[in-house]
Amino acid sequence: MNVDIITIGDELLIGQTVNTNAAWIGQQLSLNGMNIARSTTISDSKEEILAAITEAFERSQLIIVTGGLGPTKDDITKETLCDFFDSELELKQDVLKRIESYFAAKGRDMLPANIKQAELPKDCIVLDNHLGTASGMWFKRNGKVLVSMPGVPYEMKALMENEVIPRAVDYFGVKGMYHQTLMTTGIGESALAAKIASWEDRIYKDGLSLAYLPSPGIVKLRLTSKRGAQDKQLIDDYFEELEKELPHYVYGKNGVTIYEAVSSILRKNNATLSTVESCTGGLLAHSFVQFQGASDFFQGGLLTYSNALKIALASVAPLTLENHGAVSEPVVKAMALGGQKKLQTTFCIAISGIAGPDGGTADKPVGTVWIALATPKEVIAERFQIGNNRTRNIEIACLLAANMLRKYLNK
Amino acid sequence: MNVDIITIGDELLIGQTVNTNAAWIGQQLSLNGMNIARSTTISDSKEEILAAITEAFERSQLIIVTGGLGPTKDDITKETLCDFFDSELELKQDVLKRIESYFAAKGRDMLPANIKQAELPKDCIVLDNHLGTASGMWFKRNGKVLVSMPGVPYEMKALMENEVIPRAVDYFGVKGMYHQTLMTTGIGESALAAKIASWEDRIYKDGLSLAYLPSPGIVKLRLTSKRGAQDKQLIDDYFEELEKELPHYVYGKNGVTIYEAVSSILRKNNATLSTVESCTGGLLAHSFVQFQGASDFFQGGLLTYSNALKIALASVAPLTLENHGAVSEPVVKAMALGGQKKLQTTFCIAISGIAGPDGGTADKPVGTVWIALATPKEVIAERFQIGNNRTRNIEIACLLAANMLRKYLNK
Repeated sequence: MNVDIITIGDELLIGQTVNTNAAWIGQQLSLNGMNIARSTTISDSKEEILAAITEAFERSQLIIVTGGLGPTKDDITKETLCDFFDSELELKQDVLKRIESYFAAKGRDMLPANIKQAELPKDCIVLDNHLGTASGMWFKRNGKVLVSMPGVPYEMKALMENEVIPRAVDYFGVKGMYHQTLMTTGIGESALAAKIASWEDRIYKDGLSLAYLPSPGIVKLRLTSKRGAQDKQLIDDYFEELEKELPHYVYGKNGVTIYEAVSSILRKNNATLSTVESCTGGLLAHSFVQFQGASDFFQGGLLTYSNALKIALASVAPLTLENHGAVSEPVVKAMALGGQKKLQTTFCIAISGIAGPDGGTADKPVGTVWIALATPKEVIAERFQIGNNRTRNIEIACLLAANMLRKYLNK
Repeated sequence: MNVDIITIGDELLIGQTVNTNAAWIGQQLSLNGMNIARSTTISDSKEEILAAITEAFERSQLIIVTGGLGPTKDDITKETLCDFFDSELELKQDVLKRIESYFAAKGRDMLPANIKQAELPKDCIVLDNHLGTASGMWFKRNGKVLVSMPGVPYEMKALMENEVIPRAVDYFGVKGMYHQTLMTTGIGESALAAKIASWEDRIYKDGLSLAYLPSPGIVKLRLTSKRGAQDKQLIDDYFEELEKELPHYVYGKNGVTIYEAVSSILRKNNATLSTVESCTGGLLAHSFVQFQGASDFFQGGLLTYSNALKIALASVAPLTLENHGAVSEPVVKAMALGGQKKLQTTFCIAISGIAGPDGGTADKPVGTVWIALATPKEVIAERFQIGNNRTRNIEIACLLAANMLRKYLNK
């Protein structure tokens, strides 16, 4: 069963907004056994919308459209859908009531443009949007379905979860491809491919397919079976083999982050964590705190961006800073030990590096990062050379730091 | 002049990777006056690639293709392009040398799969990739151009900047649409639309078009002229009008973040900043540190996630915590004052809130956030009620905190 995803908006085409909606919709529907045939982004133009919908109806059974339903003047999707389905707008009283109570709950005034949002095509099933003012719409034609939703991500997600996915699974009775993904870190795509070449040959012989999905600091391995979930055990066994063979690199499954993997080991061990960050400026701590339940193990941290604060907060000796520089083994070890002592945690991770684009030297070029881990028994440190891009350097430094703790905990 | 963007990869369709490439390419090409007609994402299948390329050649003069050029077995773009352009692969010695020196510089072993990457279609111009092993390719047909690049974002970006954009601007001699965007925060889309209704009527009469682009905590207003850059002054004047009328909401232009806007005001005032964060766990500090030159004003921060650390690090009185709870005006004010004193900065922002999904009460439901700002003269605080989603609550709390400082600095 094929799905076409159509996302409408000039802001997507000209890249002012990254299309996270298409990714999320694709993920949810493929987890529910549907095949994403194509994802198309078009402009807020009637012609374009009509052309894209017509093409999609030729290819797919389910067409998901997002965007173009806001209260402001640039939105024309609703009128275009009326044209396509030969329908017309009518004021839906129940929708109007819902919009009124939405504004009442927020204590905000309702505007004329919001009343217009209760005008919807006669010939669609209205999907209630409890988080906003633009309703979803479910149209049927010749056994195929088109769904139109607002482009605001959390409104669209709630509509998908509460309305669209249950209805679509039921309507089309789907069962489909089965995917599982293994997460690796600390090894490049080519080197990983070389290490697992014979394993890869075997999975193909078993009728599975493999994709390498590299992203900064991480390579995901996705195994797919076209036979569906009946191959779950086969895929699990293949992944277990790699987990045993490459314990330093494999850290989890199915999109789990390295931070979640570390979090659950810390939780199991009743251990606590603190951080002392310089160049990453809080991103390492936030990477743990972003997940629910971080308070089980995360206590807090010190952001010692300036050298003065490395001394004042993390008790780094001024002479150590002077002799070795802020990006050095002795300083990063002192930061980790200082943080561990001050914040009274089982583990403390410290990071000091040159994120760039300025500040590099011949000895310590941009991308040089020292990471230290203070444990109950010792303090260890490692130097990494990442790259030239500030954002990537900061992100990858955090991944490497979390992986250092993971490797230690798994020993 | 029309552009079609084609991004190849099952990982994009099933949402394992968010398509940031399409957004970035769209942004760069539209800034160079090209019109992005459509952006299409397809699977790693020969049929799909051929169909999408054929359709795109009917619509556009320039077709940008990314993905499917990696060294591993799931990549078939190169062979498919040979079919489409009736060409064949040949081993390019100069490319092989570049790949060899790439591996030598990294001190890594070259693998057989990497040698294959020097095999490229006879009938294309090879675009050198200095950051990786997959080359770009530039094909011409009937005055139209197709460019194929690897999907790794930083490799693709370097190829675009160094090779594709200069060649395309030159080859097509483009001049096109002109966009400018005004950034607003602290006001919703509908309320903003109501406030600027008469302004909006006037811009339409002047032949401009307007789009509202909402994202969490921010609404962007994009003005577009089809007459090109000759309307720069007209658009500047319209935006200046709004800036004067709505100083609390308008904070910048063209994708600047609120953190960059605040950074430049702090820099101008020779002021320094520190943060004391609880529920945001470091994201506020990182939001400033992510940009080059943060050390001009940012000194560091305290992450007082646990109550014990609110006392130990930020000198919050235990009784204040006991009487009012961690998410309260007295505690967040004490955190800001404690941080300002300990870190010796001009300003200190403190955040304490209930990010969720647990921890809410009737008085303080999930989404309740207190933010305090310690200035040289006083400490001010404000309570916000954000929403139910942990990630959004954390992100928006940081935006609100930065905006509180911005409003204070602009007074």
